[in-house]
Formats: sequence, C-alpha cells, structure tokens
Amino acid sequence: MAVLLMLRSQPGLRFLLAGLLLLLGRGSALSPQDDNSPFGSLWPLPQKLNIEAELYRLSPATFQIAHSPQSSASVGCSILDNAFRRYFYYIFGSSTERDQLLAAGGSGGGGNIAELSQLQVIITASDPECNQHPSVTTVETYEIDVTQPVAILKSENVWGALRGLETFSQLVYEDQYDTLLINKTQILDSPRFAHRGILLDTSRHYLPLKVILETLEAMSFNKFNVFHWHIVDDPSFPYQSASFPELSAQGAYHPVTHIYTLADVKMVIEYARERGIRVIPEFDTPGHTQSWKGIKNLLTPCYNGEKLSGTFGPINPSLNTTYEFLNQLFKEISMVFPDAYVHLGGDEVNFACWQSNPAITEFMQKQGFGSDYRKLESFYIQNLLDIVTSHMKGYMVWQEVFDNGVQLKPDTIIHVWKGGYQQQMAAVTLAKFHALLSSPWYLNVISYGQDWRKIYAVEPYNFNGTAAQKKLVIGGEACLWGEYVDATNLASRLWPRASAVGERLWSTEATTDTSDAYKRLTKHRCRMVRRGIPAEPLFVGHCDYEYRG
Amino acid sequence: MAVLLMLRSQPGLRFLLAGLLLLLGRGSALSPQDDNSPFGSLWPLPQKLNIEAELYRLSPATFQIAHSPQSSASVGCSILDNAFRRYFYYIFGSSTERDQLLAAGGSGGGGNIAELSQLQVIITASDPECNQHPSVTTVETYEIDVTQPVAILKSENVWGALRGLETFSQLVYEDQYDTLLINKTQILDSPRFAHRGILLDTSRHYLPLKVILETLEAMSFNKFNVFHWHIVDDPSFPYQSASFPELSAQGAYHPVTHIYTLADVKMVIEYARERGIRVIPEFDTPGHTQSWKGIKNLLTPCYNGEKLSGTFGPINPSLNTTYEFLNQLFKEISMVFPDAYVHLGGDEVNFACWQSNPAITEFMQKQGFGSDYRKLESFYIQNLLDIVTSHMKGYMVWQEVFDNGVQLKPDTIIHVWKGGYQQQMAAVTLAKFHALLSSPWYLNVISYGQDWRKIYAVEPYNFNGTAAQKKLVIGGEACLWGEYVDATNLASRLWPRASAVGERLWSTEATTDTSDAYKRLTKHRCRMVRRGIPAEPLFVGHCDYEYRG
Repeated sequence: MAVLLMLRSQPGLRFLLAGLLLLLGRGSALSPQDDNSPFGSLWPLPQKLNIEAELYRLSPATFQIAHSPQSSASVGCSILDNAFRRYFYYIFGSSTERDQLLAAGGSGGGGNIAELSQLQVIITASDPECNQHPSVTTVETYEIDVTQPVAILKSENVWGALRGLETFSQLVYEDQYDTLLINKTQILDSPRFAHRGILLDTSRHYLPLKVILETLEAMSFNKFNVFHWHIVDDPSFPYQSASFPELSAQGAYHPVTHIYTLADVKMVIEYARERGIRVIPEFDTPGHTQSWKGIKNLLTPCYNGEKLSGTFGPINPSLNTTYEFLNQLFKEISMVFPDAYVHLGGDEVNFACWQSNPAITEFMQKQGFGSDYRKLESFYIQNLLDIVTSHMKGYMVWQEVFDNGVQLKPDTIIHVWKGGYQQQMAAVTLAKFHALLSSPWYLNVISYGQDWRKIYAVEPYNFNGTAAQKKLVIGGEACLWGEYVDATNLASRLWPRASAVGERLWSTEATTDTSDAYKRLTKHRCRMVRRGIPAEPLFVGHCDYEYRG
Repeated sequence: MAVLLMLRSQPGLRFLLAGLLLLLGRGSALSPQDDNSPFGSLWPLPQKLNIEAELYRLSPATFQIAHSPQSSASVGCSILDNAFRRYFYYIFGSSTERDQLLAAGGSGGGGNIAELSQLQVIITASDPECNQHPSVTTVETYEIDVTQPVAILKSENVWGALRGLETFSQLVYEDQYDTLLINKTQILDSPRFAHRGILLDTSRHYLPLKVILETLEAMSFNKFNVFHWHIVDDPSFPYQSASFPELSAQGAYHPVTHIYTLADVKMVIEYARERGIRVIPEFDTPGHTQSWKGIKNLLTPCYNGEKLSGTFGPINPSLNTTYEFLNQLFKEISMVFPDAYVHLGGDEVNFACWQSNPAITEFMQKQGFGSDYRKLESFYIQNLLDIVTSHMKGYMVWQEVFDNGVQLKPDTIIHVWKGGYQQQMAAVTLAKFHALLSSPWYLNVISYGQDWRKIYAVEPYNFNGTAAQKKLVIGGEACLWGEYVDATNLASRLWPRASAVGERLWSTEATTDTSDAYKRLTKHRCRMVRRGIPAEPLFVGHCDYEYRG
C-alpha cells in the first residue's frame, strides 16, 4: 500500500505537474515541446499520477500481460483473457507492425534501458466477477505501478482492471527508432461519476451491428461505461420482440434487413460487458411510438372533429389492453437486458390527439382528471412504473416525467435534456432524485470548428445546490440523435467530440486546462485512428498512421 | 435525329413533367408517391428528358453495354471498355447480388415486359479521343434513346459517353421482385457550365491516395469534371518534386509516408481521365508557402526591428534566384500535369514580413514602388505569369490577384471566394475575365441540419450584368478546405452536399424545385452508399442497402 499512501500525500495535480516538468528538464523522452503534454497521450486524465523520467522498454517478442499468482482471477476468466489479447494488439499493433518493431530493434534495442517484461494483473476481491455484468455500483478504481521490470495493475475486480489496461496501453509510446517505451509511472485512478454514457438512436436511422460494436470499442478507449440504446422511436421499430414479432415486422424500415434479432442484442450486450459497459435500453412511451403500429388498438386514434382522422397519437392510456401489452413487453425486455435499469422515455408527449378522442375524454371524466392531460400522462406513467417495478427493474426517465409531477421511486434517475441545465439539475436534485446530465452534450448538433472546447467546458456540478444535491448527480450522457446520422458518418461525428465528455465525467473537477487537453486529445484521436476508429481531426496536422478505411 | 428534334420541340421541363404525370397515372412503376420524384433518382437532372410508362427489363445474364458498329470507337478504346465494365457493376451489383437477381427472376422474370438486350454506344466524331485528356472545351453532350430492345447512347466523343453511361445507370431500378427495369426514355443532355469542380486540400491534412480516388469516383456519379488539387500550402508540402526533392523532404508531414510520388500523381490523373475529370493542380504563391522551407533563400526572412526574427514570410520577390527556382518548378509541373491550366493561388498575401525586411525595402525603392506593397506583389505575380505562359499553360488565380490590379491575360480565370459573391462576379466579368464561383460553396463550413438546401439555392448568374458578362461565368467549385477534414470524415462531409453543387452547375437554370430535388437526392445518396461512398443521410430514413464500411 506504499504507493497508495505516497500518491494520496500529493497535494493534487498542480504539484505533480511541477515535479514532472522538473524531471522532464533532465532529458526525458517526453520533452516539453509545444505539442506535447507532460501527461503524454493519457485520456481521460487519471485522477492521481506520478510520471518519472526513467524509462523501460517493451518488446513484442517477450512482453506479457498476465494474471498475477496473487490474483483471484486466473486463465479462464475470459473477460480478462480477451482483454489481455486485445491490449497486446493495441500496444504492439498488427503482426506486420510487430515485425517492423522487431526489425527496428524493438525487441532488443533501447541500449541501456531496462526491459519491462510483464504487466501482472491482480484482482483483490475474492470474487473477480469474471462472469457478471457491470452495474451502477461497480467499482472501477485501479492502481498501476510501473517501477520494476514487472509492472503491476491492481483492482478490486475485473472492471477496474479493464480501465487500468486501457490506461497502461496509453502509457506506452514509440521513440524515433520505433522502440516502445514506458516511463516509470504510478497511478491511482477512479471515475468522478458512476454513469458515463453514450446514447445512440437506432430508430431514425438503422445502425448495422458493426457500427454499434465499433462504438462500444471506442467507448472503452474513453472509459465510458453505459451504452444507452435508444432502440425504438417514431420512425422505426428495429427491436425484434419474441412476444410481439409484429412490432418489428410492421414497424421496422425492413422486417428482415433492418432489425435487431435476439442474437444481435445478446452480442451487443456481451461485447459491451467485455468492455465494462452496461447496456440500458430505452423503450420510450407513451409518445414517440408511431412505429408501434403493429399492435392493434395500442395507439390513440386521432379525430378531426367527429370523424377519425386516420392518424394515430401516443399510446392509448385508457384501455386495459394497453397495460396487458406493456406488462408482456417489459417482462420480455427485463429478461433480455440484464442491467438493473431500463429507460422509459416519457418525453415530448403531445396531448392534441388525446384531446381529440371522445373515448379519452370520457375516461378523463371518469377518472376525475378534468381537462388536465398531464394527469392522464401521469396515470399512464404510474401504471408503467408499477409494471416495470414488478419485473424487478429500476428506471430512468426523461425530465418531463419529473416536471409533470409523476410519483416516482426515490432511486429514479431523471435524465436532464432541456436547456438551462443548471436550473434543471438544481430542481431535480432539490427533489432528491438522481440526476443525469445530457442537455449540453447533444453531439448530433454540429457547428464549424473546434466545438469540443464547448463540450469540454461543461461542469455538471455547475448549479446552485448543497453538497448533498451534488452527490445526487450520477453522471452524464453524450447523445447522438439520429436525424442526420447513420453508418456513413456516425463514428467521425462522435469521436473525438465525445471524448471531451468522457474526460469531464472521469477526471477530477480541476482537469480544465484546455491547452493541455488539446495536446493530449490530438494524440488520443490519432491513437483511436490507429485502432481503426475514424475519429475526426481536431485541427490542422497529421497522424503517423492515417486512417485507412 | 428524330429524337433530337422531338425533344427540342418541347417547351421545357414544366411541360414534360405534366405529360409525365399523366403517363404515370396509368400505372407506371414510378408511381407518384410522396417520396418519389417523377424523375426517379436522376441526379443531376438531365436538361431534356421524356420518360414514358412503358417498361423494359434487364437481365444480368444477357444484358450488354457495347460499342455500336456505327461508332468510331471500338474494343480497345479502353476508357470506354473500362467504363462499360464499371457501369455493368453499378447496374447489376457484385456477383453475389447478381446471383440473387438471377434467382429472383431478374434474368427471366418480368412477365410480358420486353427485354432490353443492349446499350449500344455510338461515338460520332471521327476521333473518339480515347487516349486524350478532357479539357475546358470538351463537349459533354449526349443523347440516350431507350425505345427499342437495343438502347442507344450517342455522343460526339468518349466524354459525353461517360456522362451518358452514368445517366443510363441511374435510369435502371429494381421492382419489388428485384427485377431490374427501365422506362422507355429519351434524353438530350449537356452541362450548363463547362467547369464543375471539387477542391481538395492535401496540405492541412494529408489525404491518402485512396481518399482522392474515392472522391474522383463519387465526382463522376455527380458529373463533376474538374479536380482542383490544392496540393501544397503552409502546413505541409506533400508533392514530391523531381527537380526539388528537398521541398517534400523538408516540407511534408513525413518525407516518406505523407507525400505524393510521381507515380501517385500519375495515377490520380489517369483515374480522373477515365472518368472525364481534369486535374488542375494549385501551387499557391507567394503567400501560403511556409512549407516551402526546403529551398534556401526562397522565403523572405522577417525582421524584428533591426534583427532577424527567425520567422519567414511570403516568397522573396526581390531575388533573381526566386524566379530561376519558379521557372524550374513550373517547368516540371507543366510536364507532370497535362491540363492546359494551373492554379497559381495568389490569395491572402500578408505584407508585414516584406515591410520588416530592409532588402525588400531597398528593392521597393529601386523599383519605384514607394510603399505600395501591392505593386511588389503584382511584380512577383507578373513574373510568375510570364514563366507559366512560357511553359504553355493557362492560369487560374484567386480573386485578390484581380482585385490588386495585376495585368492578366484575357483568358485568365478569376476564382471568386470572397463574400458578397454577386458583387465579386459582377466586377470580374465587367472587366471581361472568366469567373469561377466558390464563395457560397465552402463545404468545409458545416452547420446543423439540411444545409444542402442553402448550397442548392445558389444561382451563379444571380448578379447584375449583361448577357455577355454572364457568358464569362465558366462554372464553380465546391471547396473542402482541410482544417477539420482528413480521411476519417472527408467523404461523408463532401457527399451528398457537393451533389447540390453538381446539379446547380449541370442542370437548367429552372431546376430549382427543392421538394423534387430532396426526393431525387435521397435516392441518389443511397445509390452512392450502395456504390461504396459513405455519403451522409439528408434526414430520417433508410437505404435498402446500408453502408457497410
């Protein structure tokens, strides 16, 4: 525990930075050129770190990432075994690149520099959680110690180890002879917020599985841990339900080519799990359901005066069959998606169609709702929440559900998306609900130039509230709504802009130096490119390895 | 010539549209649904066309694109042979897709519908220009006649045939049984403007050859005919010069991986030629030359008071060695690039460094320029123009060269990029120079939503001027400057936004119905996606064949 104590004794990053520059002055490979951060290419910046000038070299011929004998995990803990292999590739490149490294002396070069022979991974808890899913309470803390020929990565269970492997891979760099080097380094790191998400919208445009998996991979490079899958909406219903196959048969853009089968969903969940990412599906109701037309009598028929207009509105909250259907559907969803939470939407409910429908009017009178359609909406949501609760799931909702005064369980997560987020966050936390921030992080909205700076400048705690209120902020999500996004432009639009959100949600509140961030992010984006993600450039410049498509 | 006369007798598109809708009312496969244009997926819209309800079917097993016995071209005219193969693929897809088509009855299905067995291509001029390069005077006119089992595509030489093949491929569509169909159709088409270009910037970011070739391919889908290669600029010099290899050795981002060799340049020129596209290189001077540092004494040393500041300014116009160097360089450029024009830049020259340099001051006095640095700039440009003229090239320049009163040859093309383009175009054409429009088409500048509409709404003739002035407008270019663009995001940022420029420059001035354009462009973008170009979506929706990466 010596490392831990030593790091904890440091008075924060400012001090570390000063010490580091002193060390660099002695001729480290990380020389403080204009375009180099003292923190190299680390992204997001670890909470506590100490980087020294002394170097180790790594050889693709001999270096190993392995379970420590002291670890509660061992070969067969496939989530780690797979991660070891993955990060070996990320560090040493493809076999061709490895051959070049070996030829360049990467195996034996580096003169008098000591060799780092291993990264040993120690899982300290008795249950490493090899076969479990990450959850909202997952501990992602990890320590890295590169001070001996055998480096150590220590964490409570596999989830922290995954984060640490990413960080370790970011510490390794090439010198001008292609020798792979790593500085003597100590890191103690954990996330500032527990919920760090990306929302993808697979309804406005269908996203092929490959795009979703690529996004999950890039998320792991940025320590995101929640994939918020806005899977259905008005334009299309690509989720193939076993209980109600008519939903995608009639609601998808195409009933065969533009759907997610159960196997697809399972693959997304497993691919995400292997990267420590939760999958939270959103089935947004009672609005945003035009594509649910496969279910008879589910949507409210709208009227033009006394006649049916032929169009349909939100889900009909006045029928018992509605709740029978919802019970069946959410029973299935609860089984298919292992996470403890589902997102129930609840945003932007347009009351016009309900108002036009005589049966709804009659139901309103019977229930004593007067002409307050917010009460009708609340009635619907309340019933839905009871259904979801009966299937043992917690829920997240868009902020309107809170705004409209629906009675909610204390652990409900209110997803803030409206403008003036400071007021919204204050109101939600004042009412003692958990708050999740997205308003300033609608990444589908683009503008010319370096808009990552605006994204980066957001501070989730920047609202008037007590310390207890601040504690209720569980994190945030970058949302990439699908109006103008599909497989052709998703990755380059999301990365590295979402990386700015990733650091904001992971690193300390004091990590706000955009000049330093620019230097690290420039390198981080080139690393993503080298790993196959078409992350767009921040500005004029180049990557050693340009995108090859 | 019967077809020609018949079409010429039509009072324009409005009439054709009315007649077409009448025909469609009888139950054509092109039924006028909300999302269907009466012109199907044609983009850019041909100048004159007549589409009837009668159908032919095409079979991948038997259909042929072939030289007509009446054509002056025959097998061995490889520019056409290659184009025949290329368009066969575009029409019938990969071999797997072809197998599916055959299985679905694409070979023998279609009931009583007559089969289209061939597209015969007739080149009418005695010299088909199989081995030539397209030029500014190239005739791109073509006729298509699909009224017999053997369809005819007729043009003066290969260039019109290339445009007609693209149009023919756009006429073919699949019905719900995957049978390929084409309506009885007559088209007489030619471009409104002779110069329809795309500018790519390979200095701010290096673009791998693959990206340039992909852009050329997509350009051919949109009938662009000029690739303006802004090959070097301040940030990097990727052009490997045989005469001055030190330019890229010292000026490229990397002297080996981030350069264009002579072989690369030749490949770009040939790939472009095969698609009827001219390659006009831009070597922008005397500003925008920071990367030309490989040449000693070329750039002006700047002063801080009486001391050298260590920085450099524009090319030094006061030395004879400058012009000796330029003569050698442009001699090489003139040989490497076959087009009759080079672009000489001449924009944004900052006078501060010249003003600081005592030798320049002395030169100014000797030449009697007073303190008018525009005269010094003109002196430089005048010398450069003489050099380029001596190498038998015409030139294009950015508008500052005109603005600053440099004496120019009458056939000089002034490239308008400043705001308020109506005034700029009026001034340039009033002075009787040819004008090329780019101001409203800086496609690197992005904004949220359907900005193609703004791009599409531009009318190059929308300025105060006589008919003679309008005639001097040779076309326009969509510019994709490279500050925020590289291989990761180029294609999705360029397409289909540049397609809007493509139609504006090709189709009639009356082609301004954005509602109809939206329908055609939506289909055209899906076609580009199917052909492998990651053109981004216009709005919510889907393609039958989504992008696969």
